Amino acid sequence: MKKVAVVLAGCGAKDGSEISETVTLLLALDQHNIQYQCFAPNENQHHVINHVTSHVANEERNVMVESARIVRGDILPIEDFNADEFDALFFPGGFGAAKNLFTYAIDGMNFTVNRHVEKAIRDIHEQGKPIGAMCIAPMMLAKVLGNVMITMGSESNRQAAEVRSFGAEHIETENGGVVGDIKNKVFTTPCFMLDATLKDIYQDAWNLVEAVSAEC
Amino acid sequence: MKKVAVVLAGCGAKDGSEISETVTLLLALDQHNIQYQCFAPNENQHHVINHVTSHVANEERNVMVESARIVRGDILPIEDFNADEFDALFFPGGFGAAKNLFTYAIDGMNFTVNRHVEKAIRDIHEQGKPIGAMCIAPMMLAKVLGNVMITMGSESNRQAAEVRSFGAEHIETENGGVVGDIKNKVFTTPCFMLDATLKDIYQDAWNLVEAVSAEC
Repeated sequence: MKKVAVVLAGCGAKDGSEISETVTLLLALDQHNIQYQCFAPNENQHHVINHVTSHVANEERNVMVESARIVRGDILPIEDFNADEFDALFFPGGFGAAKNLFTYAIDGMNFTVNRHVEKAIRDIHEQGKPIGAMCIAPMMLAKVLGNVMITMGSESNRQAAEVRSFGAEHIETENGGVVGDIKNKVFTTPCFMLDATLKDIYQDAWNLVEAVSAEC
Repeated sequence: MKKVAVVLAGCGAKDGSEISETVTLLLALDQHNIQYQCFAPNENQHHVINHVTSHVANEERNVMVESARIVRGDILPIEDFNADEFDALFFPGGFGAAKNLFTYAIDGMNFTVNRHVEKAIRDIHEQGKPIGAMCIAPMMLAKVLGNVMITMGSESNRQAAEVRSFGAEHIETENGGVVGDIKNKVFTTPCFMLDATLKDIYQDAWNLVEAVSAEC
């Protein structure tokens, strides 16, 4: 049975992982009879956002502890990730991915990537294993891996030009579409980079798993 | 286009709504082209549970604010629910449903039901509109409505006997099964009352929406 790792960034689109992207990804993996283990940074979130008002709340929350809510407690710290144990690596999106895994939502194009997350990407890639990423997460793959072919959804999203500045090739897609860089085994899908409802997100997640599982 | 209400209880199985039950329910509604509006009590959670350690955390969180994480902010206080505006009413499960919507997980069989939640159930039922409930949530329907036919999963779950004490009829089911009380328009499915993985939860959610939508 194939086993993959999924890296989470908290619980909630505005300060953590996008919940429906995460759940539909895990659902699609289960439907493909692929085992998964979730990981997250065991450190404080960049901040906490009240999801009703969108204002910053005066609270501290831990990324791994909050991510655990999505997976009923079954989660490990990202520093425990060992590429030898997994057939592929997945990243759901959400603003929190771009705050807690890498800092694009805070620092713009000067963003940095969490060193454990970067190591996970490099290790799985060097082993010739595939990576699947949703929504904003491909931005991080462009920064770490450089010359890969990815999608950020529409060509008119400013992120299309931004990923090119890292040496990546940008391919426009619609929901349901997965951009597959077969040479680099990098697979990406737009999700909430475009207007979408849950059935679009599920289709993206299902097609992403289908594409990645064909390469591992 | 049909429009239904979904009542949430927070964000995370141990102190709020079970997230995968909630997301797969909303996904199944979207796949049936049914509009939904989520509601939740605008009050503090019974408590906050660290989902890694399962210990109570020294924090206060608001049920509606946390529920909003699952639905990207699109949520209303339960006191704003008006049965005239909806074709059906749904309740995902999770321990938090049995803490924040009703108090079974705290008070056992002496539990009470949030008065706004109870009013929503009575109002939609009196209008002859269907109710769909997952996991532990049917327990609350047995208490409020009494003589209804529901499932709590296995006959060997103690909840099977407990709902009978409220005058309900208990029907055993497996995952994928929906118990339909056609006369009362009450539809229930076991989800995590049984051992289940995400594909079971999605099947339960999909079949529940299928059953309810045939009656509204």
